[in-house]
Amino acid sequence: MSKPFSFRLIGTDGAARTGEIATAHGVVHTPAFMPVGTQAAIKGVHHDDVRASGAEILLGNTYHLMLRPTAERVAALGGLHKFMNWPHPILTDSGGFQVMSLAPLRKVSEAGVTFRSHIDGAMVELTPERAVEVQILLGSDIAMQLDECVRLPAERSEIERAMKLSLRWAERCKRAFERAPPGHALFGIVQGGDDLDLRHESARALVDIGFPGYAIGGLAVGETQTVMLDTVAATAAALPTDCPRYLMGVGTPADLLEAIARGVDMFDCVLPTRNGRHGLAFTRFGPINIKNARHADDPRPLDPESRCSAARDFSRAYLHHLFRSGEALGGTLLSLINLYYYQDLMAGARGAISAGHFADYAGETNEKWAEKRDIDADEA
Amino acid sequence: MSKPFSFRLIGTDGAARTGEIATAHGVVHTPAFMPVGTQAAIKGVHHDDVRASGAEILLGNTYHLMLRPTAERVAALGGLHKFMNWPHPILTDSGGFQVMSLAPLRKVSEAGVTFRSHIDGAMVELTPERAVEVQILLGSDIAMQLDECVRLPAERSEIERAMKLSLRWAERCKRAFERAPPGHALFGIVQGGDDLDLRHESARALVDIGFPGYAIGGLAVGETQTVMLDTVAATAAALPTDCPRYLMGVGTPADLLEAIARGVDMFDCVLPTRNGRHGLAFTRFGPINIKNARHADDPRPLDPESRCSAARDFSRAYLHHLFRSGEALGGTLLSLINLYYYQDLMAGARGAISAGHFADYAGETNEKWAEKRDIDADEA
Repeated sequence: MSKPFSFRLIGTDGAARTGEIATAHGVVHTPAFMPVGTQAAIKGVHHDDVRASGAEILLGNTYHLMLRPTAERVAALGGLHKFMNWPHPILTDSGGFQVMSLAPLRKVSEAGVTFRSHIDGAMVELTPERAVEVQILLGSDIAMQLDECVRLPAERSEIERAMKLSLRWAERCKRAFERAPPGHALFGIVQGGDDLDLRHESARALVDIGFPGYAIGGLAVGETQTVMLDTVAATAAALPTDCPRYLMGVGTPADLLEAIARGVDMFDCVLPTRNGRHGLAFTRFGPINIKNARHADDPRPLDPESRCSAARDFSRAYLHHLFRSGEALGGTLLSLINLYYYQDLMAGARGAISAGHFADYAGETNEKWAEKRDIDADEA
Repeated sequence: MSKPFSFRLIGTDGAARTGEIATAHGVVHTPAFMPVGTQAAIKGVHHDDVRASGAEILLGNTYHLMLRPTAERVAALGGLHKFMNWPHPILTDSGGFQVMSLAPLRKVSEAGVTFRSHIDGAMVELTPERAVEVQILLGSDIAMQLDECVRLPAERSEIERAMKLSLRWAERCKRAFERAPPGHALFGIVQGGDDLDLRHESARALVDIGFPGYAIGGLAVGETQTVMLDTVAATAAALPTDCPRYLMGVGTPADLLEAIARGVDMFDCVLPTRNGRHGLAFTRFGPINIKNARHADDPRPLDPESRCSAARDFSRAYLHHLFRSGEALGGTLLSLINLYYYQDLMAGARGAISAGHFADYAGETNEKWAEKRDIDADEA
């Protein structure tokens, strides 16, 4: 657990980058997609299958884990890696985002955020220091600072207040983190909503504090894709080239490619598994809503050339039947197919950046999806 | 698909038997446990994992499949083996039992049973001829005759009426089956409730009609275990030794061992998966209710020596957490652990019968469970 965290930039193609993050639990090749293991499990999918899909790092949710089974219990059981039997890298968020979106009662103050647990109704305090403590108890390879995320659209004054509070929390998190054992890394989170000046101010101040990696937070919270991508481009450009950049909670395959083109290295999102559970498959040919009646008699697999056996071995008719019949196996299979798709998309991006033709790769991928959207206008 | 069905008795130990059923899709070693793939899927578990557990044959439910996706659709897609991508033996029930237990409206007549579909409300007729037709469309290796199953306790006259109706349906099923392509087998079903005279009469009459295998139906429907086992013993003794005997819908591990001791060769039951989904694990040490609070901090796996990786690789604390958190992965893992346990129990039984010490094997297995029941009085 004492190996230091490091990032090596391997290649660039325009603003797009490939690199390698080394952690105490192994290497992560970037651009990287992190499946979301909210409650120490990827919904409906076995870890072994997630690993086989190509995932090198998982995300765990501090908010959920600190409430149940609790960080202290996970620590007593040997840490999150051992607890969930995932001996590979893990990133944890700070809990702040989910306090805002899930806790029934919450109050933000300079000290931190106080909220009512959605599980047992207890009042819980999450300070920057406690967010770091919890993540160290979990044994996270990459911990995130506590921040305050504002839903968009919002007043500039409100965005600025939250951004500046997040900066003060970043300093406190860094101080708290100095007492942590070696072998972990703490990332700062750029806030500032859709205001590019505030984003620049946030990025510069965080770089002054100094972190080994930086996240772009507070996006995919109500703004248009154009606004999101402009913000990503401006923020990424303000961050050091020798540190990984992580766009939190984004997004669709198209979002990922656009963000990579603007210099992002890491992603997490629930879309592959959430959409999978709801019957939407991501494939090379675009999205396919397997619940659509026209698949009921279709003997073709979703993709005969997929690395994922579920995409090769089962007909669309069978997958359709599983969803129509309410069999959980349908959600499991589509989640897995989607996780493979996301990993393949990232592997393709890494290869294309190395070969210097990322723009072509992104263009071709989007084109296939666009064709499919025409055919399946009724679907997505 | 044209290989004939056959059964070879390999060894006996008292009334207990080992044997081998050959079907067009492969061999089944008996005593055999068949996981239940109600709607062309084993609830929550991937076929590949079910196969890896040691399952050589699955059960499919005619009632469900004829309503959705329909037998005609499955046939057009190449049959049930291809549809669900299970290239190994499949047995289908006749649909009769589930018409009785699931259909909201039903009427039994000499012709067959008419019922209202629980899916779309349509009136559906299931005759002996249609039950055979559906199962041949599905491509079942072992089809079952249509029968009428009576819940116990019941009046003798009612049991006798249903038994005699089932016999007339057996004759009609056999006639209908003579028009089926080769490569399938049709089993008769002994009825007669808890009345041993009626059971004998049913068995004798079915043997006169002549089937390559016989099921014991109408048990585990409300009677005590003692009554069930006495009925099994009397019925099995009335059946030819050179045909497989299948006890339908039974049961707990202890039920299986007792029934094997009385000459039963085949079983199906939803217990391993249903109990798994509800947090009850079957282990060598007895049943363990993983939702019990005392597992919350327990770092031990369910069984470090299990063939099932889920029983070795995850702590009881983690499995407990998955159930407490409502993560479907918990049900999947416990279902799989239970399916392995059932297959290992059968493999152990086959070995013990071959070695001539089945009574010791059954006794030791029951003893370990009895010890556990003392410790875990609050659990099962």
